[in-house]
Amino acid sequence: MPQSRGQVLIGQAGGPTAVINQSLVGVIETALEHRSVGGVLGSLHGIQGLLKGDLIDLSRERRKTLEAVARTPGSALRSVRKKPTEEECTQILAALRRLDVRWFFYIGGNDSAETALLLSKMAADARQDLVVMHVPKTIDNDLMVTDHCPGYPSAARFVALAHLGDDMDSRSLLGVKVNVLMGRHAGWLTASSALARVHDDDGPHLIYCPENDFSMDGFCADVDAVMKRLGRCVVAVSEGIHDSKGNLIGASGERDSHGNQQLSGSGHLGDLLVAALKAKLGSKLRARADTLGYLQRSFAGVVSEIDVKEARKVGRFAAEKALGGSTGSASVSIVRKPRKRYRADFRLTELERVAKEQRRMEPAHFKGGNDVSSEFIEWLRPLVGKLPRMAHLAEVRYEAP
Amino acid sequence: MPQSRGQVLIGQAGGPTAVINQSLVGVIETALEHRSVGGVLGSLHGIQGLLKGDLIDLSRERRKTLEAVARTPGSALRSVRKKPTEEECTQILAALRRLDVRWFFYIGGNDSAETALLLSKMAADARQDLVVMHVPKTIDNDLMVTDHCPGYPSAARFVALAHLGDDMDSRSLLGVKVNVLMGRHAGWLTASSALARVHDDDGPHLIYCPENDFSMDGFCADVDAVMKRLGRCVVAVSEGIHDSKGNLIGASGERDSHGNQQLSGSGHLGDLLVAALKAKLGSKLRARADTLGYLQRSFAGVVSEIDVKEARKVGRFAAEKALGGSTGSASVSIVRKPRKRYRADFRLTELERVAKEQRRMEPAHFKGGNDVSSEFIEWLRPLVGKLPRMAHLAEVRYEAP
Repeated sequence: MPQSRGQVLIGQAGGPTAVINQSLVGVIETALEHRSVGGVLGSLHGIQGLLKGDLIDLSRERRKTLEAVARTPGSALRSVRKKPTEEECTQILAALRRLDVRWFFYIGGNDSAETALLLSKMAADARQDLVVMHVPKTIDNDLMVTDHCPGYPSAARFVALAHLGDDMDSRSLLGVKVNVLMGRHAGWLTASSALARVHDDDGPHLIYCPENDFSMDGFCADVDAVMKRLGRCVVAVSEGIHDSKGNLIGASGERDSHGNQQLSGSGHLGDLLVAALKAKLGSKLRARADTLGYLQRSFAGVVSEIDVKEARKVGRFAAEKALGGSTGSASVSIVRKPRKRYRADFRLTELERVAKEQRRMEPAHFKGGNDVSSEFIEWLRPLVGKLPRMAHLAEVRYEAP
Repeated sequence: MPQSRGQVLIGQAGGPTAVINQSLVGVIETALEHRSVGGVLGSLHGIQGLLKGDLIDLSRERRKTLEAVARTPGSALRSVRKKPTEEECTQILAALRRLDVRWFFYIGGNDSAETALLLSKMAADARQDLVVMHVPKTIDNDLMVTDHCPGYPSAARFVALAHLGDDMDSRSLLGVKVNVLMGRHAGWLTASSALARVHDDDGPHLIYCPENDFSMDGFCADVDAVMKRLGRCVVAVSEGIHDSKGNLIGASGERDSHGNQQLSGSGHLGDLLVAALKAKLGSKLRARADTLGYLQRSFAGVVSEIDVKEARKVGRFAAEKALGGSTGSASVSIVRKPRKRYRADFRLTELERVAKEQRRMEPAHFKGGNDVSSEFIEWLRPLVGKLPRMAHLAEVRYEAP
């Protein structure tokens, strides 16, 4: 009678990452090892699967498949962007009771932590025997408490590699290149482009994050100054930049049920910035914009090795704590040890401290309104790992003999 | 008196690739080994460097630097998009005479081959002792005669990896995902997205190339059919798609001196396709567009191993033939040997056969107007190399006991 021992249920929510399935497999393998667990279920498309009865038996997966899934980007259990209504929460809790689920692991960002908090509160009120564990992931790196979020180092690596190559491309044909990066409220991912700099004149030359107000005039003047100095300018800009009144510079109308505006999946902001530059600096200016889009979170084959390991460990840690009975509903955070060489520990955090709230970059992470500080770069470097070296010719001028 | 033995001059032009510097170093190392060569010069920004006297001494570069440069994306000698006027050709030939350049290597696409042809003809008319060698590169793969172009396999690998991951992302959150890919006249790069397919329901589900007329109604109907079947649809589309009258679907106004319209560096086409889908299939449809842009040709760290080797060999081959005196002005093509395991040879080709002309995909490469054939996929596969495996869960439905 496995049911009598209580079941584990796992769901994934929000935007996928390159390593979110490492956390999934971390939870599964730990749960399968645990004697008190009667079964390990997966809910497809997050809480949607519970509402619709779309559940799979994860104990039937082969070990080899799980390892291969762990190395695959995207959410293997599918995902959802959905804030449940109170009625839906009631339905979800009823479904969990029916299934004898005593441990619910929800792998996601701050919206998913909010869902986890809602469910854990209602379960406590109803005295339902349920631990809801939020397992953090997000390429946006905007969760509170934790040093950084699983998924972010791999996305930051993608952004750094893109800018390493893009800077060489910019040297080849000159002009202005604007790269629009994910991050609606926080500039962590945009800021990671700074890792592409090695030499003094390397791009990105300007970095704009949502933590600082954006002015189109200031932007055009900044670009103009870099163009005059180098004849080229690579710009990294967050999709979430806004003016001093908080109006988004490049928003479309679409919103999800958490109230988030759609910013990604459109080239609108990049095109708008290029048009502004041409209007201000001259229509003959060679200016191009790329919106790096979903590749930042899903590109196959680019991961940070530290991220891979930590994402797995965060899943295992959440499962060990919950199944060991040493915690009620909670989230997990990564604590960086104060050592020269990067080392990290994992700790439990109250859901209240993670739910909904967004952690933004700090003033010390910036250098003026259009760049990041060396403090930020040194914080980020170990997470992303070693980057390939971009080589330049010595360019000794030819003198006719 | 090295001048008396005649000098080699090298330039790079057009859009860079991930391996264009392999060809550059292939020419340099071969020239440096050759007794009849008095000096090896680099012209910065292609022919522009000759017109402005912006020349560097490549014999002063360290071997270690050259090897590192070979592994760096972008054009190490910088690039240019410029068709010289007759007067400029006269100036260029005069500069080459002054420098005692007897071998001019121009690494580029069909526009650069056109420039090479112009210069070689005028040099022949003036009885100037000059061999102009066109060394092929282009991620567009649209050069005549050759089996494929150096640079294309690496760009195709990037596109395949992007679609491998993007398909997992699409499975997670469903809806329509449109990816706009480089290629103004030919669909080679867009078509390479097909390598991301392993399982029956893997994306991209629809592939649109400029070789086939594009109809917005047909597109919406195609997407609708896939959505009804799978609940999601990943689309790969060339930036150069056009209607049956030849009008580009997503053109901006900008043109270069070769008469090419600017298509890349804007998210316009993707946004236009998403808007059309929402208008036709309902505004609630989750539809997103990414324009992969310049990352396709410059992303640091993604190369095809075969491409790396062939790009180097193409440079060496061009230099050996030209410096060995066995050819006049010419271009180089890659010939695929008719064997089971991929093998290639290099041959000389007349510049007339490569200049300006674009090689498009053939009817046999397509399956209807919205897909590629297995013949195309089998042709491409060995060039791109082994791809990572994307794993799916077995998804055994949970049955309550």
